[in-house]
Formats: sequence, structure tokens, C-alpha cells
Amino acid sequence: MPPLVQHLGIIGVGLIGGSIGAAARKRGLAEKITGLGRSAAKLHGAIESSIIDSATEDFADLADCDLVIVATPVNRIVDDVLSLANCCSRQTVVTDAGSVKEVICSRIPSDLGIRFIGSHPLAGSEKSGFIHANAELFRGRVCVLTPDSDTDSAAIDLLRRFWMSLGMVVLKMSPAEHDRRLARTSHLPHLAAAALTSLLQDGDRPLAATGFRDTTRIAAGDPELWRAIFEANAAAVVQETDRLIQLLSRWRDQMTRNDWESLTRELGAAKLARESIRD
Amino acid sequence: MPPLVQHLGIIGVGLIGGSIGAAARKRGLAEKITGLGRSAAKLHGAIESSIIDSATEDFADLADCDLVIVATPVNRIVDDVLSLANCCSRQTVVTDAGSVKEVICSRIPSDLGIRFIGSHPLAGSEKSGFIHANAELFRGRVCVLTPDSDTDSAAIDLLRRFWMSLGMVVLKMSPAEHDRRLARTSHLPHLAAAALTSLLQDGDRPLAATGFRDTTRIAAGDPELWRAIFEANAAAVVQETDRLIQLLSRWRDQMTRNDWESLTRELGAAKLARESIRD
Repeated sequence: MPPLVQHLGIIGVGLIGGSIGAAARKRGLAEKITGLGRSAAKLHGAIESSIIDSATEDFADLADCDLVIVATPVNRIVDDVLSLANCCSRQTVVTDAGSVKEVICSRIPSDLGIRFIGSHPLAGSEKSGFIHANAELFRGRVCVLTPDSDTDSAAIDLLRRFWMSLGMVVLKMSPAEHDRRLARTSHLPHLAAAALTSLLQDGDRPLAATGFRDTTRIAAGDPELWRAIFEANAAAVVQETDRLIQLLSRWRDQMTRNDWESLTRELGAAKLARESIRD
Repeated sequence: MPPLVQHLGIIGVGLIGGSIGAAARKRGLAEKITGLGRSAAKLHGAIESSIIDSATEDFADLADCDLVIVATPVNRIVDDVLSLANCCSRQTVVTDAGSVKEVICSRIPSDLGIRFIGSHPLAGSEKSGFIHANAELFRGRVCVLTPDSDTDSAAIDLLRRFWMSLGMVVLKMSPAEHDRRLARTSHLPHLAAAALTSLLQDGDRPLAATGFRDTTRIAAGDPELWRAIFEANAAAVVQETDRLIQLLSRWRDQMTRNDWESLTRELGAAKLARESIRD
């Protein structure tokens, strides 16, 4: 069977881009993989690790790609897609891997001359850089596709097959729905984890056991990457932050008036909700 | 070398009590281990698993113990210690494993006729019951001892050696200091995890990836156990909840007025704080 993709381009060979390269390589999904970065020299290690075959700083080197994945930070994705569109044709299917979708998809014109569909592979870690690339990062995870009504079905099909070949479960939804849901399942949890960590005082650290470490692990993520995510999904994140503040305030008031029955009932509901999520 | 303890009593053979039994057994720390529960019949499985040698509902059966560990829920510990004191002598060193210390230690009179010292082994999981007992649960974890000024040093020494033999690092501090710090490292994180889980809406679950799962794992803990902890440390938990609400409100305001520089700086400080905690 020929590989799914002849020439795969990856723009931004960090943790996600590098893991996509490693996973595509391991599964024989692409004949050739080219990585594009702001410094091709820095991608030497990625070539040595067989994550990519060659490195470039020039978008023109991706002109004959059948699939390009833009895995740069959220605030750079649109510029990278526009740069790419200057070189590529309708033959090229382009997607991204950004954690927000509305600001990206809405700023990429449908008459750009490439076939763009937003993707969000829900995988990652608090680590960064292709040095941490992991060919199994995507296995068993969810990837959201956010095609619009005029996206051609062949492009959707290619992307669906690509992400599924990495072991992912592929879902489709609108960019706006994606962003609202991710505010609750990812962006607000990051903010809360960072806040809990910030509240620690001198001498607390030896008492930070497994529970604290699990709860706050994501707070070690790159602040610039997260700033870009919060900025790109600000309205939803602010709204969910308000809901969190309201809920914490209600529980606080229950504690101060010794209404332990109500608090216990709400903790019980949270336990059930948590147990309905597979670990 | 003779075992550290001739007769070890464990009151409350759940996840913690059961794991203490399993760990003491594995390391040969006790000649004989007796488990006390409200239903001795229910402890049959713990005997079959060699976690304890025998089960009882009668505190008198612990009269000749040299060490008794009270591993019942926080709101039952004081009663269990008082019941035990009716049967035991000054020969018996008694400790607990509760996640709060001030309300427990302050309610146990120093002239009770036993030698009581508060302990908090910082280990556990969202699971419960001796069926999940794990002889390695304590290895590499911290155990806090909260002796007061008139605790005899032989008793402190026995406890320190016991917990260290389970692989723990033993720290000493006052009950009040313990409770203030645990409010930040354990109790508030639980409340926040439960709140994040409660904010999920229908259809969000498939989008709850590793970050969400780590951040909210502890929300699956037993609500009655947690209610007892919050109730026993209410003042500190309310105070820390207020600090969390204030911090989230400040970050929320930074987002609404597009002050991304300030937010990024604070996220960067949180990242450094998180990285200073060993995983």
C-alpha cells in the first residue's frame, strides 16, 4: 500500500510538530517529511532523530506537499498559513494543531487557493521542544476537526485518515463550539492550576503530595504559549473563570455557615462527574 | 533483629489502614497485627490478604499493643482514641493518620493515660477500601508528626522509626502549622478540582484530555471523607479559598483589559513555582 501522503510538511517542529513527524514516520504515513522552522539549523537534531527528512526556512520548499500541518504557537498559525498559501496550490491540504479554533479559522479566507481545515489534536504535555517528541503521543486521544460548509470532502477525508492513523478518535464540530468547550476542559483548568501553585507559601513544598502534583502539573506549561491561548479565547475563558469564581464563592459561603450537607452533596455530584471521565 | 513492634493495632482498615498493615507486614515491622473495624466480619478479606492477622470490634483486644494507628475518617479519630484509652496503658503509643491535626490533637487530653502523637502520612489516592491496599503507598512520601512539648521522646522515636521503615521522610511541626499548610497543598486543590469538574457541560467529556484528567483526578475522592476534612479545617480552607478567588479575579480583570503582559508574568512565576516541586 502506498503511503497516505507523498510529501508531508510540518511547520513548527516542537513537541507537537515533532511528535507528528515521529508518529507519521513510525507508521509509514509519508514518503517524505519536511520540517520548516525559523532556524533550519536548529532542526538538525530532528533530522538526526528521523523525525523529519529535511529542514528548511523557506515556505517554497513545501510547494509540492500534499499535506502541511502548521504546529506553531496559536498566535503565529494564521501568518504561517498565509505565507504557505503564497507557495502552494489547491492540491495542498493544510491544517493546524492549535488549541483554539475560532480566531484562526475565521481569519483564513476560504478563497485562499489552498484547502485549509482546522484541527486540534488534544495531546501534549507541559514539556516542549522536539527533544520530547513521542510517536505515541496521539494514540487513544481525540482530534477535533472544524471544517466549514464549503470544505471539500476529499480534504476532510485525508485529514480524518491521517489523524486516525496516528491512533486518534476524530470528532467534528464548529470552531466556536470547540472553543467554548475547551475553555472548560483545558484553558480554565490551566488557569486554576497556575493559581493554586501561586498560592503556595515558603515551606509548603514538602507538603505538596500526589494530589497537589497532579492538580497543578499543567501549570509548568510555557507561559507564552498559554498567554496566546488565553488571548485567542478570552471571552470564553473570562466567562468560565466567572463561573468558577461563583461556584467557589458558593462553596465558601456554605462552609462559613456550616452548611456541610449542601457542600457534601455538591462534592458527591463532582465525584460522579469525574468518574464518568475515563482516565 | 526483633521486629520494631510486638503487637501493632490498626483501627480502620481502609485504604490507609490496610496499606499500613500491608507495608508493616512486608517489612517485618510487627510480630502481630490486629485490625479493628465496626464489622470484624468485613475484615475477613484483609486477613486473607495477610494485611492483618486477626480482626476485632473490641478495643480491649488492643490492650497489649505497643503501637496503635487510628486510620479512621477525620471525624471519628478522637472518639476512637478515647475508646482506646479506656483499654490501654502508658505502654501503648497511639497515633492517627488524619489529614487535619489541630482539632484532633487539641481534643485529646495529655493526661489520657496513653501516649498520643498526631501523624499525617501524606499518601493516599482517590480510591478507598483495603481492597486497594498497597504496601508501597508510603515509599518516598512525607509523614508529618505533631508532638507537643510534653510528648515523651521514646514515643516520638518509635513513631519516627515506624514511618521511616515504611520509606517515609518524617517532618515535625505544630498541628496548627500543619493545617494551614495542608489547606494550600491539599484541601483547596481538592475544592478547586471538584469545582472544575462541576463546571463541565453536556458534551464536554470527549474533550477532557490528559491535562483535565490530571487536574481533576482528586475530585473522585469520597465526599464524606472530604466533608470531614473541610469541616475540621474550615477556617484555613475558607481563608485559602478567598485567596484563590482574589487571584482568579485579578487574572480575570487582566484578561478583560487586555493586560496580557501582567498575566504572562504571573503564569511564568507559577511555572517556576511548579518546577520547584519534584514530581
